[in-house]
Amino acid sequence: MTPSMVRVPIERLVQGGFPEKREDALAVEEPLEIRVGGKSLSVTMRTPGNDFELAAGFLFSEGIVSSASQIIALGRTADENPNIVVVALSREPSAKPLTVQRAFVMTSACGLCGKASLASLASNRCPALPPPTTTFRSGIFHTLPEVLRRRQAVFDSTGGLHAAALFDASGRLESLHEDVGRHNAVDKLIGDALLRGRTPLANSMVLVSGRASYELVQKCLMGGVPLLAAVGAPSSLAVATAARAGMTLIGFLRDGRFNVYSEPGRIR
Amino acid sequence: MTPSMVRVPIERLVQGGFPEKREDALAVEEPLEIRVGGKSLSVTMRTPGNDFELAAGFLFSEGIVSSASQIIALGRTADENPNIVVVALSREPSAKPLTVQRAFVMTSACGLCGKASLASLASNRCPALPPPTTTFRSGIFHTLPEVLRRRQAVFDSTGGLHAAALFDASGRLESLHEDVGRHNAVDKLIGDALLRGRTPLANSMVLVSGRASYELVQKCLMGGVPLLAAVGAPSSLAVATAARAGMTLIGFLRDGRFNVYSEPGRIR
Repeated sequence: MTPSMVRVPIERLVQGGFPEKREDALAVEEPLEIRVGGKSLSVTMRTPGNDFELAAGFLFSEGIVSSASQIIALGRTADENPNIVVVALSREPSAKPLTVQRAFVMTSACGLCGKASLASLASNRCPALPPPTTTFRSGIFHTLPEVLRRRQAVFDSTGGLHAAALFDASGRLESLHEDVGRHNAVDKLIGDALLRGRTPLANSMVLVSGRASYELVQKCLMGGVPLLAAVGAPSSLAVATAARAGMTLIGFLRDGRFNVYSEPGRIR
Repeated sequence: MTPSMVRVPIERLVQGGFPEKREDALAVEEPLEIRVGGKSLSVTMRTPGNDFELAAGFLFSEGIVSSASQIIALGRTADENPNIVVVALSREPSAKPLTVQRAFVMTSACGLCGKASLASLASNRCPALPPPTTTFRSGIFHTLPEVLRRRQAVFDSTGGLHAAALFDASGRLESLHEDVGRHNAVDKLIGDALLRGRTPLANSMVLVSGRASYELVQKCLMGGVPLLAAVGAPSSLAVATAARAGMTLIGFLRDGRFNVYSEPGRIR
């Protein structure tokens, strides 16, 4: 497997000093092609590791599959190219996203692909959540960023990775994934849960290491996650989308405080 | 014009305290559709502001236009939809990117759209730079992050925006753009320079507020920028691409130090 970290020679310059030859660890960024039915469906720049989970999570959060049972197999090409995942589905991918015949689709975080026009964005597939049942005690949140950081192995070496973590309602860490792309980290997380038969994640919450964009809210909604917390700031569309779908969105979770942007009723 | 910041009611929870009703400022994230020749070419989630520069920079950095003169007009729809930019080109867009008939294209930072397959990624359009002529004095770099932060008006209120700034070889700020998407901030910067007849930016450098991905290196290379500096970490592919093209890539520019990952000869 391609490593998720590499070491390279660099020059370090400290103010007033001479250049110093050093080594530095870098987070690996490599393209991953997802092939479905023999065709290239997507290329994402990702950090190698959990590629099958990433592919499953991508297909699920983009609405191409609605359950793990539609994924018959996840594998590699005959020559075992580490940057290609081959997916066999039990039926052809849903027509809807594939009829989006655009050459270019981009978002603030990645190509969120259902929305290749404003019309399709307006009718996006963000499902509304069922009414709140699970609640979360406010005291548990403050410790979560520290748990995230302690477990972020590659970030500690490279400073270059986003993380997404799944916690249960009592604040216990269930899984954690890292990637150069925050949308990939969430796709790996949701895909992991999907492949283990854990979706919808109705009693869990997701914590992301950076900011909360529209896209991260959308992906978590597809996974049925009722609460998304971000160490950084949310965007206006992240808040609007969470509010519309009935998701609790938390931002600036750090230094013993946090902001609740929508559905505060889930926090007791 | 849609504002780049909005205020929303929130609840703030401080450890051990009671929920407090407050207001919070959010960075605006809205979709922007770029139409060329009457067709939707791309939708990006962006922060409103400098939409024409964003559209021009996107078309240029994706290789759809190679000069400003190919852009006849940048405008709005008849109903003045603030989330659509209509572009008229002097000729049809280059066939190459448009023949990429993929429904999904995603990257760690956005849909970098030329690379809808590994093959097209390998033959990406990152041009090699001419041999170094402009050099940069190492002492000027340490002050640049502070200049960036002082000028980042919306970030200060929201904590939610990436910034990209253009500096001349003496470290004088030439322009600065902010966006929820770091690739958009760079597209606005390059598009701004393109529309003012300033490309290739052979004697300037770009500073970005976050990490340096492959895509940011690629976009700067399209603009002829010989030096890219990032406050955060670079990825492995960002370093490899910069090294291959002869670009100087600086990372971790903060706290009076920085790392040089490629082409240190431009720094004296």
